[in-house]
This record gives sequence, structure tokens and C-alpha cells, in this order.
Amino acid sequence: MIPWEERKDKNEIIWRYSKNPITKRNQFKNGARIFNSAVLPYNNGFIGVFRVDHNNTVPNLHIGRSEDGINWEFNENAIEWIDKDGNISVPIYAYDPRLVKLDDYYYITFCTDLHGPTIGVGRTKDFIKFERLPDAFLPFNRNGVLFPRKINGKYYMLSRPSDNGHTPFGDIFISESNDLIHWGNHKWLMGRKNDSWWENLKIGAGPIPIETNKGWLLIYHGVTNTCNGYVYSFGTALLDLEDPSKVLYRSNNYLMTPEESYETIGFVPNVVFPCSALVENDKIAIYYGAADTYIGVAFAYLNELIEFTKNDN
Amino acid sequence: MIPWEERKDKNEIIWRYSKNPITKRNQFKNGARIFNSAVLPYNNGFIGVFRVDHNNTVPNLHIGRSEDGINWEFNENAIEWIDKDGNISVPIYAYDPRLVKLDDYYYITFCTDLHGPTIGVGRTKDFIKFERLPDAFLPFNRNGVLFPRKINGKYYMLSRPSDNGHTPFGDIFISESNDLIHWGNHKWLMGRKNDSWWENLKIGAGPIPIETNKGWLLIYHGVTNTCNGYVYSFGTALLDLEDPSKVLYRSNNYLMTPEESYETIGFVPNVVFPCSALVENDKIAIYYGAADTYIGVAFAYLNELIEFTKNDN
Amino acid sequence: MIPWEERKDKNEIIWRYSKNPITKRNQFKNGARIFNSAVLPYNNGFIGVFRVDHNNTVPNLHIGRSEDGINWEFNENAIEWIDKDGNISVPIYAYDPRLVKLDDYYYITFCTDLHGPTIGVGRTKDFIKFERLPDAFLPFNRNGVLFPRKINGKYYMLSRPSDNGHTPFGDIFISESNDLIHWGNHKWLMGRKNDSWWENLKIGAGPIPIETNKGWLLIYHGVTNTCNGYVYSFGTALLDLEDPSKVLYRSNNYLMTPEESYETIGFVPNVVFPCSALVENDKIAIYYGAADTYIGVAFAYLNELIEFTKNDN
Amino acid sequence: MIPWEERKDKNEIIWRYSKNPITKRNQFKNGARIFNSAVLPYNNGFIGVFRVDHNNTVPNLHIGRSEDGINWEFNENAIEWIDKDGNISVPIYAYDPRLVKLDDYYYITFCTDLHGPTIGVGRTKDFIKFERLPDAFLPFNRNGVLFPRKINGKYYMLSRPSDNGHTPFGDIFISESNDLIHWGNHKWLMGRKNDSWWENLKIGAGPIPIETNKGWLLIYHGVTNTCNGYVYSFGTALLDLEDPSKVLYRSNNYLMTPEESYETIGFVPNVVFPCSALVENDKIAIYYGAADTYIGVAFAYLNELIEFTKNDN
Amino acid sequence: MIPWEERKDKNEIIWRYSKNPITKRNQFKNGARIFNSAVLPYNNGFIGVFRVDHNNTVPNLHIGRSEDGINWEFNENAIEWIDKDGNISVPIYAYDPRLVKLDDYYYITFCTDLHGPTIGVGRTKDFIKFERLPDAFLPFNRNGVLFPRKINGKYYMLSRPSDNGHTPFGDIFISESNDLIHWGNHKWLMGRKNDSWWENLKIGAGPIPIETNKGWLLIYHGVTNTCNGYVYSFGTALLDLEDPSKVLYRSNNYLMTPEESYETIGFVPNVVFPCSALVENDKIAIYYGAADTYIGVAFAYLNELIEFTKNDN
Amino acid sequence: MIPWEERKDKNEIIWRYSKNPITKRNQFKNGARIFNSAVLPYNNGFIGVFRVDHNNTVPNLHIGRSEDGINWEFNENAIEWIDKDGNISVPIYAYDPRLVKLDDYYYITFCTDLHGPTIGVGRTKDFIKFERLPDAFLPFNRNGVLFPRKINGKYYMLSRPSDNGHTPFGDIFISESNDLIHWGNHKWLMGRKNDSWWENLKIGAGPIPIETNKGWLLIYHGVTNTCNGYVYSFGTALLDLEDPSKVLYRSNNYLMTPEESYETIGFVPNVVFPCSALVENDKIAIYYGAADTYIGVAFAYLNELIEFTKNDN
Repeated sequence: MIPWEERKDKNEIIWRYSKNPITKRNQFKNGARIFNSAVLPYNNGFIGVFRVDHNNTVPNLHIGRSEDGINWEFNENAIEWIDKDGNISVPIYAYDPRLVKLDDYYYITFCTDLHGPTIGVGRTKDFIKFERLPDAFLPFNRNGVLFPRKINGKYYMLSRPSDNGHTPFGDIFISESNDLIHWGNHKWLMGRKNDSWWENLKIGAGPIPIETNKGWLLIYHGVTNTCNGYVYSFGTALLDLEDPSKVLYRSNNYLMTPEESYETIGFVPNVVFPCSALVENDKIAIYYGAADTYIGVAFAYLNELIEFTKNDN
Repeated sequence: MIPWEERKDKNEIIWRYSKNPITKRNQFKNGARIFNSAVLPYNNGFIGVFRVDHNNTVPNLHIGRSEDGINWEFNENAIEWIDKDGNISVPIYAYDPRLVKLDDYYYITFCTDLHGPTIGVGRTKDFIKFERLPDAFLPFNRNGVLFPRKINGKYYMLSRPSDNGHTPFGDIFISESNDLIHWGNHKWLMGRKNDSWWENLKIGAGPIPIETNKGWLLIYHGVTNTCNGYVYSFGTALLDLEDPSKVLYRSNNYLMTPEESYETIGFVPNVVFPCSALVENDKIAIYYGAADTYIGVAFAYLNELIEFTKNDN
Repeated sequence: MIPWEERKDKNEIIWRYSKNPITKRNQFKNGARIFNSAVLPYNNGFIGVFRVDHNNTVPNLHIGRSEDGINWEFNENAIEWIDKDGNISVPIYAYDPRLVKLDDYYYITFCTDLHGPTIGVGRTKDFIKFERLPDAFLPFNRNGVLFPRKINGKYYMLSRPSDNGHTPFGDIFISESNDLIHWGNHKWLMGRKNDSWWENLKIGAGPIPIETNKGWLLIYHGVTNTCNGYVYSFGTALLDLEDPSKVLYRSNNYLMTPEESYETIGFVPNVVFPCSALVENDKIAIYYGAADTYIGVAFAYLNELIEFTKNDN
Repeated sequence: MIPWEERKDKNEIIWRYSKNPITKRNQFKNGARIFNSAVLPYNNGFIGVFRVDHNNTVPNLHIGRSEDGINWEFNENAIEWIDKDGNISVPIYAYDPRLVKLDDYYYITFCTDLHGPTIGVGRTKDFIKFERLPDAFLPFNRNGVLFPRKINGKYYMLSRPSDNGHTPFGDIFISESNDLIHWGNHKWLMGRKNDSWWENLKIGAGPIPIETNKGWLLIYHGVTNTCNGYVYSFGTALLDLEDPSKVLYRSNNYLMTPEESYETIGFVPNVVFPCSALVENDKIAIYYGAADTYIGVAFAYLNELIEFTKNDN
Repeated sequence: MIPWEERKDKNEIIWRYSKNPITKRNQFKNGARIFNSAVLPYNNGFIGVFRVDHNNTVPNLHIGRSEDGINWEFNENAIEWIDKDGNISVPIYAYDPRLVKLDDYYYITFCTDLHGPTIGVGRTKDFIKFERLPDAFLPFNRNGVLFPRKINGKYYMLSRPSDNGHTPFGDIFISESNDLIHWGNHKWLMGRKNDSWWENLKIGAGPIPIETNKGWLLIYHGVTNTCNGYVYSFGTALLDLEDPSKVLYRSNNYLMTPEESYETIGFVPNVVFPCSALVENDKIAIYYGAADTYIGVAFAYLNELIEFTKNDN
Repeated sequence: MIPWEERKDKNEIIWRYSKNPITKRNQFKNGARIFNSAVLPYNNGFIGVFRVDHNNTVPNLHIGRSEDGINWEFNENAIEWIDKDGNISVPIYAYDPRLVKLDDYYYITFCTDLHGPTIGVGRTKDFIKFERLPDAFLPFNRNGVLFPRKINGKYYMLSRPSDNGHTPFGDIFISESNDLIHWGNHKWLMGRKNDSWWENLKIGAGPIPIETNKGWLLIYHGVTNTCNGYVYSFGTALLDLEDPSKVLYRSNNYLMTPEESYETIGFVPNVVFPCSALVENDKIAIYYGAADTYIGVAFAYLNELIEFTKNDN
């Protein structure tokens, strides 16, 4: 059963968990900040791949386990990856993981270094042994998000090519693969919007797209640039089930923007950054990074999100 | 009777309303943040033109009404303007309004788009029907502020020409007009000050200048640039009554700088931005935007502000 | 009779004078470089207002006289202006003049300083006594170009608002006036074009618009940004005779781009910048600045320019 | 027989063709500048794919034919591509082509737009009908260069991922493919060098790598940034024949840098940019763009280039 | 007896004073913010040189006195300096002082203006009369920190040369002097670290180096750049006792990073900036600026800091 | 006898050598470009320290010898320096040398690396053995120029502190020393001038100051920034003989600006950069770098330069 709390204000499409944030600073040794992370149901509980910024302020990926999806125990050691030659290593940095069950594996995509940030790919069957695949794309890329199943015989990945640094631009693209190693048929999916200021600087895919009978529900973040820095909000889009390179609907308004103190104060103020979602029937629990410092959870009804996406154009 | 609260700390020239802020996030549907707004007494109460940032993070202007100047009811729809050809439209964006009674009309000046931000001008007699005049200046301009009466037969407007984006420079200029449509005789009024750091990046006029027997009291904002973004404070100047292009006095110190949590935390942290003031005898209530998220009110005595302006050089 | 030379290559719409450039470096004492200048027929010969960069590299305006429009004698002293209070002064800088006969005066518009570059306006009846009018616009503005007559009772001026410095953006706007002092009804005329790279950074009006039975022929410069700096070319547009804020046609291709050594080498390499044109029947002689170092002359037939403008979309 | 001219100065490893440049401005209607182009022997003569910047300053690809490799006839129309759905189109822009015989096709890679510059791929058997394949990579990428044969069963492509605009950084990467559509196993090949200033800003592959018994000879350009813009030179490297992701040797000195007036003056001064090379026994003729305005040819002996690459470390 | 409070969480190497911050906004007239300051034991109590940002937002140095090192009384007037010619003056700005007893004087080093920020030097015997020495270095320099005694007959100073503005780079250098006026034998001491993100932008020395039997303990700040501005943390290094230009050990992790609200909210959010330390046996109390708004105190054991520095590589 | 050529145009204060430039590209093996260099009379001829940019585009210093000061023979190897510990090394880069006879030595100052550019100092008695002293200043500094004798018992050096990269600002400072190792009493000498555009970006000392009975004649370069890069010109100032930190006179106009093709075309177009001067009675021959590619020589009369400096304010 996914985490859930009833809605109190009926005007809200999305509502925050009342005990947010669910992580705190220095939650474990060398775990300075835990945020922008991905979770899945696993073995009657939940498992997650977490972005943990260490005490040298460098992020890496840690496994966490939870019975209720709210209270988490973390491995103090970062994930070690085995490559195809049997070498074991920890990346010099790794962040913003996404996690998806695909075929017989749990796949993890994340941002890592190939002489510039790009999309790292790894997989595991048991969350004990982790296999590293080749990076999906050339740098400079971030926010690589796999679809949870093949579509017409092809794997699909969303990503946000851009430059290095605090990249001031970026649209979402979609790519195809037969083997999760070689990618092609790249297409531009959707871009920043000048007339919708919360997403006028750059956008990037968030959680694994959610299959609904109206299309793939994509929750994505959008960024605007104020004179005091970036503000990260998030919104939604619906992609065609059969051809996910077609955007059917896209929200004009944000779904959530930073408002609570754990979202407006921290290492990077004014950030809500969704990385995963748990779905149970019509209920959805969205896990989002807050201020690059905490993890928050927010709840919604799937059918309402779809309506929001369709009507808000 | 304008809003008022007695001073508690006698060392303060200006003191904040104890129940600040007077607006909150999401106060009405699609009204995400209300700030940088202008009010006037009207019909035994108060009326105001408010900057409201919608849920797509794009600002527009909304009418608000209040009995006490503190608690406001807002129109959920943005102001629709009728141009000289009878066409009705809502600007793609409009923000930072100023409001002034001039001749038989209430005039509203605001920042809007003419292939770049510039000074939009509109007027109304009844706050029901709003007439749009041509934009006063070429882009790129912001903070257009009318004087509340003709001076020697001429209308006057202050403005802050600069560039587009989060413009890192800007001084206050003054322009003349016979008809509120054609403007000329532009003069530089006053500029940034290198030796007064709170206003060393850019400055801009705030509320409608207040006529006193010592001159026009101008409350204006000043901006400095820290490594973590801009800080907006405000100060005062006195302009010659007969020739408002002459600066008689100007404060060296700020009058107010962001200190309270609703001023230091929000969509744009560390902003106090005055847009209007209510005056009653010697009392003044200044309405200012806080952190691009809230409206705050602060109180002062007019004669003390004049002394502050004259002595603090 | 305007300067003229027959076309040699029939494929050319525009052809350069074979003895270009017509000015040289250090042509007179303290006259380091003469370029971007404006000429008119006058007293059986020609008169001009010339941009002259002095030996301190600061530009000002000098009068020049010529019998043939090719060989010029220059006043060694910059123009001194008398303002409405009878004060005489030379601006701290003045550049890129345009010259037009309008009513009983010769009007000169130029770029000068009002705490930032803006459009200076002056006039003379005899090129001996020069009267300075108030600056037409607030800074930051350049390339102010008057129409050579009132249209429907109004004066019109083109200009290019932008920022200070080597401004990396800029479109052409049009403004109206009753008195050449107060300006309003500002409209966006035409902008940069992403799909026409020679003018994808900024554009600006060149010579005084030429009245033809097809409309006002506007020769304008366009700028593109290479990794080694800006390249200035020029093209043409046709504006509606009765409503010059309407663009009827606009060339997609440039009419001229820097190719000759006096255009590609100099103080600012790769610049052709038209500031005036002489017309006689169907013949046109265009005066353009070359590399911010020289003046070049180019010839064309008016009807061919109109065809070029109309067909090249 | 490839173009050739004997060496005059025995100290030179590389020497320019005495009749350089081999193209001129406005060589054909709407062909303003021809440079950065690729040629191959074909039908007892030569064929080439040329970057032609049109009179709107937008580049596209044109076919050229020549008997001697020096004097070229160009198609006035840009290449039209047929995609897999049979649609015919000309890209909005296309530049810096490379041309290689691979399997039964002539493949053309070039820079084109996918909401940002990336590597376009096309092929032809007859230089009459041109087939467009999907773009090889996500943007932002340039200088995509195929190897002329499969290596251990895989196709290989070099490329230079970076950002948009006049990108101030960039290294050479290498990618693998089974089908020339899906690419993976991306590796960083070699980067800028801080201690070799001619290539301290960015580098990019030039002509198709040349197979020698010492390895793949890669001619690549390197860029440095002066206060007056970029300077493009070129040097050489040797890659392992069996594993081209291994750099065996790399020159420390440039092989050629802009020195002649057609290289130091033009649309982009100070550029030599090699795009193709013809090899015959030990002779090599390198075709390079000069100043983004002309094509130059330079000659060398292959064995001397290999020695230069090996010794100059 | 230095300020002290027992550790509550045994996992902490450093712990904050429970009543932090020890200064508040507007603590005295014209004393808007007090931070980044230096203290020493003096006359059975404590004395300090404080950075006070005035109400014009310009910083200067004020003397403060305290019995307990926590509660301070401040001089309302900034320090007036007497130069060698007997002239008395207050610098136009002065900030980030360090204070050290050296020979018979208390020396104060600070950042001040010499047509750009550089290291001002002054001294006093009694904190009543202050003598100004020549500035130690050419601009642009900050964070000048003297060693508390001669080493092998030479004075030593650390500093951080960089540029003006919010300088985005900077390493720590060390210089020698015989007379505290002429400085030479400049050496690079240590730099930013790419693999330790909290200090990957710039670093600067903090308190006066503390002599221990393991070496000079240097507490230094490090800065990283987020999309919402700089974050200032601090760490430690050990320098060779006999040759302080040798770095023996250096922490990889930060010792402290902004976490508390008085560190994450304020004039410059997310800053902890150590300027002085009091040592008593094994106890150390570190005074640090917080958010450019407050002073905080933190406690540690010297031997644990040494272990932290040695082990954390 | 210094190089000399009679003046042809009597209006010229300075005139170029008719056979300029006196060096050419690739004049010796690995000597790609020779410019910005310093010469002195020596042993009945002339000796010089030359900036030579090698074929990897990295500069270093080479000795050259000449009988006539025009035709030079260069050592193919860069200067090797012996430091105080007897170690021999060649700097990773060294450029823009100045050369002066001072006490019993010839001193060479130049720009070299100390984790950033700074002023290297070396000396020789015989131009065979070269001794390296410690760098004079902390980075970031360039254009270090010694005075040719002690003044009131102190050595003096001019320099131009700034930042790294193509630094967009910089004034001339003056420092004192007793031992040529430790420097102090730094003063600001003179800065950019906003109203003299050729030197409105940055300035830097050129040749060793020339002692005259009117003061120290300083020839210095000034830089302005066009949209196509920097332009380097040079002018003059007179400093007080007894107190060289006092500027007595300073030219408003440039003395020379790039005009000839070897100055306007090359690796960095539009540069004249004086590094040394030979004086004989009233004659002066100035050696200047041209376009970062060549050396030019120009002639003048000393007394005329003094008049130029005094009158041109």
C-alpha cells in the first residue's frame, strides 16, 4: 500500500504530506543531504535509489529500504557497479536517479560523468549486485528517463540534452533503442514555453511515465530564472500510448511550485524536483526533492491529474 | 482613514505592520502570489490595482477592494482593456502597477510588452471600464510613475530605462507631456550611487510622488547585487515642487531593507519593493511587495521622512 | 547630378564605386577616421554631416562640402550646437548622423549621450548655425531616422531601442510626433530574423526612407554574430506610404555584405553601414561606412531595388 | 590523380597550393561563400559536397564536380533529401559536410538542426538521389566524422558534443553502431590541451580518418581564443587500427595555422578548417575552409605526417 | 576563559553554540548587520574588530568589547586610522578583518580599496589609537591573514588574489616579509578542488593559523556555486611549522556548512565564514559570519580537528 | 647608433619605419611569430629579449642579436633560467618581456605563470647565464616595468594588476622595493579614461620609462573594445622625476593606433603594443608588437613627444 493521506483542501489537485520532509540533513554518517530520489514497491515494502550528497558535497547513489515508504533506512555506502569486464567501481559522482522495472531487471538511470555529465545506465535484479551498462548518450545530458515497457518493440528514453554547468536552456527529447545500449531516432518531444513562465528556461522529465488509458502521464519539472536564481516547479503532459513522441496534452499551469519552508530554504532554495511516483489504483504519491536538501511527498488522484493536463492548456 | 498602527520602537523612522504580510499565497484561484501593487482611497474604502502572478507564473493586473486597506477582496479576472479602436484585450503580461488620480481619471501605469518591456498606460473612471492608451515609451523601460498633477502645465512621468531580462543597471529619468501620449524633454533625474551600496546596481521610482511643502517626496527602490542575487531596499528623495527634474535632497541610507522572514524568503528572496502609499495628514502607510510573494505595509510620519531625506546625505 | 558610375557586371543589383573608399585615415588633423555619414545636395553641390573619430577615438559630427559628392572638404571643428537657452556646446560624443530636409530646416539626428546613448536632434537652415532640440527618446537608443515629410499630419521617426555597450539585440520601432519634440504611439516595425542569418542579431534603419510609388523604400543594416565578431550587411524593405508602420515587403537576402578589403579590414572589420542615399530619377547612390574606417559609395537603380525587395522573400 | 604541386621550401611539412584559394566569393548565383567542404574521386574525376553560404547567410549543401579537383562546377540548388517515408526536403540549414564511401553508399554527415545543431546523416549511390537517415545523436553536436570501414564488425563515428552558439569548449568522442542509426558505447577520445594553446579551447575531427599501417591518421582542428576572436588551426593524431578509441600519438604543434591573407581576412578571420583529404600513395591533398570564405588546398606526404605525429609530443 | 558549551551529539566534530546567533540586525544605530569579525582575549575579557554593515549597506570596522566573548558592546563609530604622515581617515569601506598579536602590536588586516579591493594593514597597542600601514598587496586581493609569529625570521601572510566583483575563482597564496610592508617570495599554497565540490569555486584563509605540535592548523572557507548562488562552507588544513608554504594535510570534507536558519536565510543566504578562533588548551571557539547578517560561534576540540584534518583525505 | 629614418610627413609626430615589419612569420624553426619584445644597445650592436610564439602557440623568451637593430639573429632555444637553488628551467610560458640595465645587471621582467599570470623577474650580466629571481607580485598581473635607476634609494616597478583571461579592465600601479624581491607601498598611478575611448578599457606600461629633464616619459598602451574585439593603441605620460607616483602630464590622444596592414591583420588584428625604446640624443626608436604577429619600429623626437604629452590634455 503506497503512502497516502487524505486531501484537506478540496481546491487542491495535489497536496503535500503533512509530515514533510521525510528526510533530514545528516541523516546518516556522510549523508549530508538526501533528495531527488526514486522509489519502487519491493518485497512487501519499498526500495529506493537515493541521491545522497556527501560531506564533501559530492553526490552519489545509495540504496534505501522502507516498510511504509516514509521512514527509510539507508546503506551508508554508495552503490558499487560491476561493468561488463567485471571491474567494480563507484562513479566520481552520480545524481538524480530514476528507477524502473523493465523486463527482468530494475533499471537505474542517473546523471554521471563522461568528460561532462551524461546519462548513466545500470541494472540489478536483487539490489545487491549492480551491473553498469554503457552510458546512453554523449554528454552533455541530464534527466534520462526510461519508459516502463517496450512500445512497438522498442525501448524509449526521454532526456534533456544541454550544456555543462548550471545550464540555462534545455528541452525534452525522446530516443529509441533495441538493446538499451545503442540509441537512435532521436526526436524533439517538447520545449520551454515563453508564455508559461514557470517553464520558460528549461524543462526535464521527472518520474517514469505512468501508463493510463489516456496516454503516458509525464510529470516533468520546469525552471524559470529570477534575479535571485532558478525556481523549479513541476507540471504534467500526456503522450500518445502508441507513439510517445507525440504530445497529446500539456499543462499550462504548474502542478506544484515551491511554497513550504523546506522547499524555499536550503542548499538550493525554491526547488521542487519530482523523481518518482508510486501508483495504486487512482492514487499517486509523488516523491520530490526539495531545495536540494530534503525529500517531500505529495499526493494526488491520477484521474484528476489527467483532467488537469487535458483542461489546462 | 488609512491603515495605521502606533510605533513601538522610538528609534524607528519606519515600522512594519504587526500583521504583515497582508496577502498570502494562493489567496484566490489562479492567484498564486500577490505583491508590488497600488492602492487608493475610493468610495469610503479603498481600491487597488494588484500584481497577481498566476499559476503559470505570468503576472497580470487585478482589481481589489477593501474596507480597511488591509483585508482585500480580489477580482478573479485580470483587467480587460479597451483600446481607442474599441478592441478589448488582456496584455500577455502586466506587472508592478502604479495608480494615481489625475484630472478626471484614475490612471494606471504598469510594465507590459511592446516587443520588450515598456510602460503601459491605462485609465478608468469607475474601475469597471478600463481604457488603454498607447504605451508611453519605447522599450526597454520599467517603473513608470506619473506625478499626481500637472506642473506648470505639463504632465510628468518618472521611468527607469534599461534593457530586457534581469537588467543589471538603471537610473531614474523624467519626461514631459502635454497629452499623456506624446512624451519628450527627457532628463536624467538621478542615478545609482557607488558609495551607497544598497542602491549601487539600479534604482527605480516607487509610489506616486507625494506633494509636501518641502518638495515632492519620492520613495524609490535601490538594488545591490550579492553573490546570491539582488537585494531590493528603498529610500527617499525630495524633488523641487516647481521643477521636479531637480533633486533637492536624497537619502544616503536606505529607509527599509529586507529583514523579516516574509521579505527574505519567497519566490525572490530579499525584496522590499514599494509601489504605493496612502497619506493622511502626517501619517503615511507604504504598501510594498515582499519577496515577490506578499504585500507588506509599513508606517511612518511624513515630516520625519522629510527630515530623514534632508539630513541623511 | 549625383555621383554615378555605370554597372559592369550585369548580375549585380548593387555595385561599388571603383574608386572606393572616398575617405582615408587621417584625412585632416584630428580626423582619424571618417565613416557612417550623411549627405544631401546643397547649393549646386553637396553638403554632409560626417561622423569623424578623433585622435582620442571619440566621434563627433563635422560638416563637409563637395562639388561632386566624392571629393570632400571637411570642417576641422566639430559642430557646435545652440540650445533653446542660447547655450553653445559640443556633445561629449556624437555619431552615425542622418540628415533630412523637413519643412524649412535641415534636420540632423544622431546618437549622443543622455546618461546612455540616445537620439539627439538638431537642425539648421544654413549649415552655419546649428540649433539643438531635446533628445527624442529616453536611452538606450540608436539609429534614429526621420521620414522626409509629414504623413497624415504627423512626423515619424524610426529608431532601434536596445541597451548600452555593443548591444546584442535590437529591432526597428516607429514613433509619431506633432512637434518633433514629444513622441508617442510607438510601434514595433520589424525585427531580427532567425532564418535569415545576416540579420539575426539586430537591425537598424539606414538612410532617410525614400518615397516611391510602391511605398517607402527603407535601406536598413542587419548584423550577425560570428565567433570573431559582428558582421554588418544591409538589405531593404518597403513600408506603406500612408501608414509607414506597415511593412509591405522585406528582402530575405542582404543587398550588400562586406567583401572588399576596405570593408573587411579596419578599426571594426566586416562592416558595411549605410547612412544616406542620393536619388536622381531612377539612380541611387548609397553612402555607407566601411569597417568603421572609411566611406564607400555604391550605386543601384531604384526600380531594381524595389523589385529586389518585393521578390526576395 | 589527385591535385598536387611540388614542395618548394624543404622545411615545410605541409605546403599550400600556389593558386589558393580555389573558390571565390559569389562564384554562382546565391553562392556567396563556399568553404568547409568534402571531396572524393568519382568517375575519373572528382565529386564533392560543399558548404555554400547563400545570400541570406544561411548555409546549405551543394554538389560540385571537377575534372582536376581544383576547378569546380556547382549545382545551384541545394541537395534535396528523401526520408524513409518518401518525403523530400531541404534542411533549414546544413554545413561542414564530410563524405565517405562506406559499403555500397557514399555517406554524408553534416551539421543540421534538431532543435539545436546535431549530426545529420545521409547517403547516395549516384549523387542524384539522396537519402536522409535519422540524425545520429541528440543535439548539441558538430563535426560528426565516420570511419571509412567497419572495425571489428562495428561502424564508428567521431563527434564533438558541446552546446549551441559559438561554443567555447569541446572534446572529440567516439561512438559505435551496428546499423548507422543507433549509436552507443560512447567514449571520450581526446580533449583540449592547456599546454598547447592552439587547441586549448576546443577541438574537432576533420577529414575521414586515413588508414595507414601505423594507425588511423586523424587530422583535426583546434581552436584558441584571442581577445579578438577564435583562431582555428589543425594538427594530427594516430589512432589504434583495431581499437580507434585509443590515441597512439598526437601532435603537440599545429600542422597548419592561418597565415595567408585568404585565411586571415574574410567572414571569419583566422580560420583554417580541414574537412577532407585525397590520398594517393604517399601523397595527400587536404581541402580546408579558409576564413569561412574560401576553400584552400594544401599538400603533404603521408609518411611525413605520420612522423610529425609520432615525434611531436 | 573562552566561551564554551559542552557537546551534545557525540557524532559531531564541531557543534554550534545553542544561543546562536550572538549578534542581531540593527544592534546599534547605523549597525545594520554585524558578521565576519575577529576577536581576541584582552584585559580579562575580550576585544574584537567587527565588520559592521551600515545603513547605507557599506561595511566598516568597529571595535567591540565583551566580558564573556558572547555579549558584545560596540563602538558606534568606525575605526579611524592615522597614517605615517599623521593624517586621520576612515576607509571608504573595510571588511572581513583578522586580528593578531604580533610583536608588541595587535595587527589588523582587512579588505579595503586601492582602486580595487586589496589587503589593508593596521595596528594598535591599545585599541584607542590605530595606525595604518601601507596596503600589503596590489589589488585584487582578499582574505589576508597573518601568521601569529615570525617563522625563521620572516613574517608570513596568506591571501587570496582574484579579480573584482563576486570573484568566481581564487586560491590561497603565501608571501614573506621582513618589515610587514614589503612582501615577496610569493608562493601558491593550495587551490580549489574539483573533486570536493564544497570548495570547487574558490577558497580563502579564515582565522589566524593556530600553532600546534602537528603544524599550523588553518581553518579556511570554501565556496561552491549552485544555480541559486554561492554556498560558503569551511574546512581545515595543516601547514608545516617550519615552512608554512608546505601543506601537510587537508580535509576533503567540510567541517561546517550552512544548516541553521540564521545561516541559510539573510542578506547572503547559505554562508558560514570563519574569521577568528579562540583557543584554550584543547578547546577552540570559532567565530564565523552567518549569511552576511549574524555572528555565530561553534566549538570543537583542537586535537579532534587535527585528526579530522589528517584522516579526511 | 640607433635605427633611424627621416620623417617624410611633417604633420606626423611619430612615423613608421618604411621597411616594417622587421620580423616575419616562421623566421626560424619553431618561431611562429615574434612580437612584443625588448632591445638594448650591447657590445657595439644590439641585443634583445624576444617574445616568440612557438608552433604550439605557446610563447617563450628568446635572445636575439643584431648589428643594426633591424636585422636580427635569434637563438632557437628559449632562455633557460637558474634559480637560487641552482635549478635550471624554462617557464611553461613567458611573454611580453621588458629589458633594463640596472646596477650591474640587465634585468628582464615578463609575464609568466604562478597559478595565474604574474610578473617574472630575471637578470643576466652576459646574456649567457640567466638568473631567475622570485616573481615580483601575486597573480594576476601583467606589464611589469622597472625604472632604470633607483629613485631616492628605492627601486620602482609599474604593473597592471587585473584578472586572468583576456582581462577587460586594468590600471597602472607603482610599487617600491629595497631589494627587487620584496615590494610594497603600492600606489595607483593612473587609470582608464572614459572620455578618451582608445584607452577606456585597460592600460599598461610599455617601454622602460625614459628619464628627461621634464620627468619620466612613459609610453603606455591603451585598449578599447569594439564589437569585433580589442584595439591596442599607445600614448604617453610624464611622471615626476623625484616621485614617479605623480603623473605630471598625460596625453589625451593616442600617439599611434593600428593603421598599416601588418598591424590590422594577423593573429590578433588591430594591435600596436610598445615594449621598448632606444634613445640617442633627441631621437627615439620605438619597438612595438604588431597584431601579435610582427615587430614594427617607429621613430620620433623626444622633445616632440614631451610637447605632445604636455599639450594634449
